[in-house]
Amino acid sequence: MAPPPASTASRMIALFLRVLTFGFLIVSLVILTTNTATLEVGMAEVKVRFKDIYAYRYMLASVAFGLAYTLLQTAFTLRNMVTGNSLTSGDGNLVFDFYGDKVISYVLATGAAAGFGATKDMKPLFAGAGVDKFFNKGYASASLLLLGFVCTAILSVFSSYALPKKV
Amino acid sequence: MAPPPASTASRMIALFLRVLTFGFLIVSLVILTTNTATLEVGMAEVKVRFKDIYAYRYMLASVAFGLAYTLLQTAFTLRNMVTGNSLTSGDGNLVFDFYGDKVISYVLATGAAAGFGATKDMKPLFAGAGVDKFFNKGYASASLLLLGFVCTAILSVFSSYALPKKV
Repeated sequence: MAPPPASTASRMIALFLRVLTFGFLIVSLVILTTNTATLEVGMAEVKVRFKDIYAYRYMLASVAFGLAYTLLQTAFTLRNMVTGNSLTSGDGNLVFDFYGDKVISYVLATGAAAGFGATKDMKPLFAGAGVDKFFNKGYASASLLLLGFVCTAILSVFSSYALPKKV
Repeated sequence: MAPPPASTASRMIALFLRVLTFGFLIVSLVILTTNTATLEVGMAEVKVRFKDIYAYRYMLASVAFGLAYTLLQTAFTLRNMVTGNSLTSGDGNLVFDFYGDKVISYVLATGAAAGFGATKDMKPLFAGAGVDKFFNKGYASASLLLLGFVCTAILSVFSSYALPKKV
């Protein structure tokens, strides 16, 4: 049996949180990928990019997963609101929402944590080498990723409550 | 209204996962806190402890939270199994399980991610300084924390399905 249709209000809140997540993640992505610096090692200068730090690579992967999933879910929600049908809001979709929100929120949380962990401990090691700004941008990107995680975690609570009771 | 009582089988599985989580976390804690090394900087030697790396401090905090929560939940489960009553398995307890498992699984996931992120990027910076073993133990501790997270994430799926339907 199909569950009772979600109210328009709860759909609007979910849509708002998805759009917010998307916004946070896209800004995080831009800051992360455009982040470059010049490391001064004695007389030499070495160009540093986000790719040189493994934690930032993992952050990129987690942001990319988050963006793809959020886009997909936003498209589903908009389609449901426009057509008003429950083709994609049956039990199967609720279970997909549940596991999707859960997994993606873990992915975003670990991405932010890896970014913070690496930045916090590496920044003092390169103090005075002209890369402070580089690591500050790493913090900024990780903070936005964290905000994206918070939105997804709230959505994950909603989708847990919406789970059909079969087990 | 009280939900239908959980079957003995599902309680046994939950208890098994709690004990497993506890085991992973306690070993992770021991490896993390006993981890020391001597860093060779030129002629000088500097003692390195896990406290010197902020990511490892956060790992310690997340393991401590995880252990306290897992102990509490194990005690609740054992008490329920022995007395067979539902004093602590009413709706309120199911909601506590849900949010508890969710929050603690995020805490453990971020702890492991911060540990992995910092270790992966810092290890090559200190190559040849005699602290490889120190970072390898960091990896070991983070891996066990990750296993503890996986168990808690499974428990979190269970407690989401057990949520009372009120929303």
